[in-house]
This record gives sequence, C-alpha cells and structure tokens, in this order.
Amino acid sequence: MIPTSAATRAPAASKRASAQILKSLNALTNPSIGLRPSFILIQQLQPHPVGRRTFSTSPTKTAIKEFFPQKETESIRKTEPAWPHPAYTYDQMNAVTVAHREARTTSDKFALRAVKVLRWGLDLATGYKHEKATALNVHDPAAANKKYAMTEEKYMIRNVFLESVAGVPGMVAGMLRHLHSMRRMKRDNGWIETLLEESYNERMHLLTFMKMSEPGLFMRTMVLGAQGVWFNALFFAYLISPRTVHRFVGYLEEEAVITYTRQIKDIDAGRLPKWEELEAPQIAIDYWKMPEGNRSMRDLLLYIRADESKHREVNHTFGNLDQKEDPNPYNSEYKDPKKPHPTKDLTHTNEIGWDRKDVI
Amino acid sequence: MIPTSAATRAPAASKRASAQILKSLNALTNPSIGLRPSFILIQQLQPHPVGRRTFSTSPTKTAIKEFFPQKETESIRKTEPAWPHPAYTYDQMNAVTVAHREARTTSDKFALRAVKVLRWGLDLATGYKHEKATALNVHDPAAANKKYAMTEEKYMIRNVFLESVAGVPGMVAGMLRHLHSMRRMKRDNGWIETLLEESYNERMHLLTFMKMSEPGLFMRTMVLGAQGVWFNALFFAYLISPRTVHRFVGYLEEEAVITYTRQIKDIDAGRLPKWEELEAPQIAIDYWKMPEGNRSMRDLLLYIRADESKHREVNHTFGNLDQKEDPNPYNSEYKDPKKPHPTKDLTHTNEIGWDRKDVI
Ligand SMILES: [Fe+2]
Ligand SMILES: [Fe+2]
Ligand SMILES: [Fe+2]
Ligand SMILES: [Fe+2]
Repeated sequence: MIPTSAATRAPAASKRASAQILKSLNALTNPSIGLRPSFILIQQLQPHPVGRRTFSTSPTKTAIKEFFPQKETESIRKTEPAWPHPAYTYDQMNAVTVAHREARTTSDKFALRAVKVLRWGLDLATGYKHEKATALNVHDPAAANKKYAMTEEKYMIRNVFLESVAGVPGMVAGMLRHLHSMRRMKRDNGWIETLLEESYNERMHLLTFMKMSEPGLFMRTMVLGAQGVWFNALFFAYLISPRTVHRFVGYLEEEAVITYTRQIKDIDAGRLPKWEELEAPQIAIDYWKMPEGNRSMRDLLLYIRADESKHREVNHTFGNLDQKEDPNPYNSEYKDPKKPHPTKDLTHTNEIGWDRKDVI
Repeated sequence: MIPTSAATRAPAASKRASAQILKSLNALTNPSIGLRPSFILIQQLQPHPVGRRTFSTSPTKTAIKEFFPQKETESIRKTEPAWPHPAYTYDQMNAVTVAHREARTTSDKFALRAVKVLRWGLDLATGYKHEKATALNVHDPAAANKKYAMTEEKYMIRNVFLESVAGVPGMVAGMLRHLHSMRRMKRDNGWIETLLEESYNERMHLLTFMKMSEPGLFMRTMVLGAQGVWFNALFFAYLISPRTVHRFVGYLEEEAVITYTRQIKDIDAGRLPKWEELEAPQIAIDYWKMPEGNRSMRDLLLYIRADESKHREVNHTFGNLDQKEDPNPYNSEYKDPKKPHPTKDLTHTNEIGWDRKDVI
C-alpha cells in the first residue's frame, strides 16, 4: 500500500532537504506558498492576522506569513463558508460512540471487506498498531522512538492523509447524481446537497489539520497520487452500485470515529502532551463557531469526531434507501415533526443509519 | 454537429413510435416513468398532487401520474431546494439586457470563437435562423410549416437541450476546484459554492422545461451523448485554463440572454400563441417563489433570463480574477458595504462582469 512510514520516520536532515525541494517546487507554481515556516507557535503568540499588523517592524514579519493567506483584500473583509456548520452541544458531542452496522447483504459484506483491507494496508504501510502504541510506557522518554509509538506528528500526518481522501466520495456522488438528473431529466430529490456538503465538511477537516502541520514532499506526493486513483475508483464504483458506495463510506466513517476516539483517549491518558497545549486554528474557530475557553485540540477533535459520526449515519441511511426514488431524509420536511427523524445536526442521531421504513 | 432537426421535424407517427420505444426502455430501467402522458393541461385542471387524491375514482387516475412524482412519502411532506433562489423584482428582471463583453486577450478571443462555432453548429443542425423565423407572417397559418418557422415546440426542445448542457460547466469547475484545494492543501476562497449553485440553478431550468415538454427518444439520446463529450471537454479545458473556461461560459451566457430575450419578444409579437396561455409548472412556482397572478410562461422566461444574466456576470467576473488567490466576490463581506459590489441577487448588476480592481 502507501508507504508513508518513510516520510514520518525520516531523520531531520532529509526532512529539511525535502522541505527545500518542496519550497522550490512551490515557488515555481505558486510564489505565495514558497515560505513555509513553523508558524503554529508563532501564530499563537501573535494572534492578529497579518493584514492588521502593518506597522510592525518585527524581523519575524516574513516568518509569520501564513501558509494560507488570510483573504482580506483591498475591498473584501472576509469570505463566508459555503455551508455554515450546524451547532453541536458538548453533551451531544460527548455522546458520540464507536458503532458498527452489521453487514447483512452481499453488497454490505463487500463494502465492509473493502474498508478492512484499506485500513489494514494503511496501518501496515505506516507502521501503526494501536494496541502496541498504547502499551508503551508514557513516562519513558525512549518510548517515543520505539517502533509502534504514536506521536502527535504521526497522528497529524495520518489525519491529513485520511482527510485528503475523505473529501472525494461526497463530491463524486454529488456530481454523478447531478449529471444523472440532467441526463435522465429526473429530479434528484435533494440528495446532491447533503453529499456536496459532506465533501465540503471533509475539506474543512483537511484545511484545519493543514494549519496545524507541515506535511513533507513525500506526503504531498502521496496525497496527489492517492487522489487520482481514489477518485477514479469511486467514480466507477458509484456508476456500478451507488448503494454499495454509500455503505462503504458508512463503514469508512465507522473507522474515522474509532480513529478520533482513540486520539481523544490518548490525550486524556497523557500520551500526547504537545496536543494538551495546542489550540485550534482560527479557521476551525470560525467554522465550528467554537466557544471561547473551549478551543483546544481536544475540543477540535470532539467536533470533528461528531462530524464523522454524522457522515456515518448519513451514508448508512443512504445505503438503506431506494437510490432513485427516495427523497433525502436530511433535507426534508416531515409530516409529524415531533417524531424523531434525520437532521443535519445532532438533535436525533442513529449510529447505524435510519431504516427506510422509519423515514420514508 | 448535432442533427436535432430530425427529431424536431419528425412527423407525428414516428414521434409516437419513438415515444413507444422510449416507454419500453424506461419501463425496463425505471418502472415509475413508464407512463408519460401529456399531463400539462390535465395538471392545470387538477392542481392537487396525486397523493392527496386517494378517493378519486376518475378513470384518468393513471393518466395524471406525473413524469416527476411529487415526492410526498408516508413520512415526508416535501424536500427543499438545495440553494434557495434569491428574490428578483420585476423592475430588475425587465432591466436585463443583451450585452457583450469585448474580447481583449487571446484567451478571450479563443473563448468567443468557440462559442460562435458552437452556436453556428447548433443553428445549422436544428435549421434555426432567427431573422428568417421572425420574417414569417404570424397570421399566415401556413407559415408554421415553413422551413425556418419557430414553433413553441421547437423552442422548447432547443431550451431543453441547451439547459441540459448548461448545468455541466459549474459542476466541473466546482469539482475540480474542490479536488485541487485538497490536493494542494490550499483554501478555495469561496468559489466552489457559487459554481455549484450555478449548476444547480441550470438543472432547475432544465427540470422546469421538462415539466412542460416531452422530448422524444432522439432528443434524449442527443442529451446523453452530448453530456459525455461536453463533460470531458470542459474537464480538460478547465485543467488547462480555468480563466478561458469562465470567459467561454460568460460568452455562452450572453447567447442564453439573447435566446430568452427573443422568446419573450416573440410572445409579445404574438408569434407563440400557445405560450400566451401556458402557465409555469409547480416546480417553477416553488423555486422562484413566483407571485400569484404572475405565473405565465412569459414570467417564467423573465426569471430564467435574469438567472442567465447573473451567470454571464459571474463568469465574466471570474474570468477577470486571479484564479488561485482571489476570494469569490459573490460570497464575501465588503469593507464598504455602501459601495456597489457583486451580489447573488440583482441589487447591483454588471452585464460584462466586474473588473478585478473594482472588487478585490
Ligand atoms: Fe473528516
Ligand atoms: Fe467523514
Ligand atoms: Fe439556464
Ligand atoms: Fe446559464
């Protein structure tokens, strides 16, 4: 599978070398991202965006130039997110649990097997074995260098990679349903919106993690290659069996909830000390409207995990429906609004997806 | 080019035959659209959706089964549109004019030439010459059979075909910008939303016209083939030069405004008597929130033309911007909100697109 282990384990010298190559490459295609300092800590000391600090004579001026420039221009103050995020309460986010929908049909079993194979391959390639990682003694400084140790950096790189592929299925499904609706001249019944919104939400996950990390050239090449293969695989799979793809994404999201639950637990167990102090970047605070005083990495992971649980529910539900005829239960008005029904936020949840008879 | 003339000029018998073939084909793939009656008039006499007329013993029961079933299910009353339409006033819609942005750069000239070639090809294939059509005497019943006569049916088929391809560029551009943002791990700055919204709006145009017409098998095959070629052409063109594609769409939309302006004028000149009585279908009334008493075909064309003028403006504006760095002016908050700036509705308009210096 994808040997990201080489990148994550690279010694500092080769890391600097690859950063240098990337810098040159980037400068060729896009001058504005040529400077890629370790801005995370600096940014925390200097909370004001670049645009407002014009009188500063600090020599770190170029160093705090952001990887993503704040898009304040001469006329424009800011640009709103395409889909505003629904509000989540802490009670709702803490109630999110690991769950598994039983594979009943052949299509379900195929989807589950595919997810398991992908997870096994990725874990193998990145040298990740959760049990071995958690078994290492937290208070032994040498543990961080042991084979299966998970560091903040390794988790972050894993998250960046996974989020960079997570934004593809929703876009592929939304696009294909759009083209299908026009080609067959039939209504879509509201599915497209939720699928595109999901892909947008995943992209926000990616951009948030990107703000907190600095993937090397190797990782970026992996992301590039993976997107090509992944996009095409999903494109053809969705043409053949949209139901199986929704089930497959449902199972992928089950894994995503597991992954983020583990990271939250690892923080609580003191295994990720750097993340205990890490604050969520501005992009995350704006997008999830994170309340003041609750803007740590742990809070961020709670929001992201809740999003993944919603994707899990949505895709398992879609996998239960008639792909052509049924309206989107997440975008519909119910005859009996008091009866629990699917929602965009976490008001009513159903880990393993809603059954068709209960919503249609 | 695409020889739709055969379909539009087909005698009634072969039309019935092709409808029969289509019926069988549809029944195979999708039983619910096997019945395709001329429901437009019937629907007007029977404004209530099928679901509420369960006690009716009318023998026309199956005949009014809609081509697009109203998606009222056991639990769900209705499904909202993905992007609510911005409100337009009649003053604003009447102020929409035919306009042309001068081609300045080589890229502009290439885009304009491409649009002119496509238009020429389509007109040739469909035997459409506007000057010759309008020169025919309205009050001569024989005129309707003359070579260049434009009838309501011919216009409708033309509109269906054009709208079925119009929904592709926005989706292609939105999808490619989404994938690019994830691959390069850079923010998109809000463009994707407007592009996807445009493609949704075009799909609503198509579905509205579909409600009012009954394209034959030939037309449907054309739509199917055209989508494949068109999607791929735009996909690669957008990878090579997004700026040129936005300019190209800007010029296409100039043509769309011309087309709908002509249809409105033809109604006013009495050349399209059937459209004088035709009412907008429910899908259009809901989507554009058409006020009571203003729900004729002419009103509908005013709304659609205004949409096209907005696409013209958006795409010409996008063609003026830095594709990678500039925020989306249609989705941004302005430092000086009193100064005219791009909007989603028709508050401030600019037929030939906003220049970069005025909005960024
Ligand atoms: Fe995610
Ligand atoms: Fe997800
Ligand atoms: Fe249109
Ligand atoms: Fe348009």
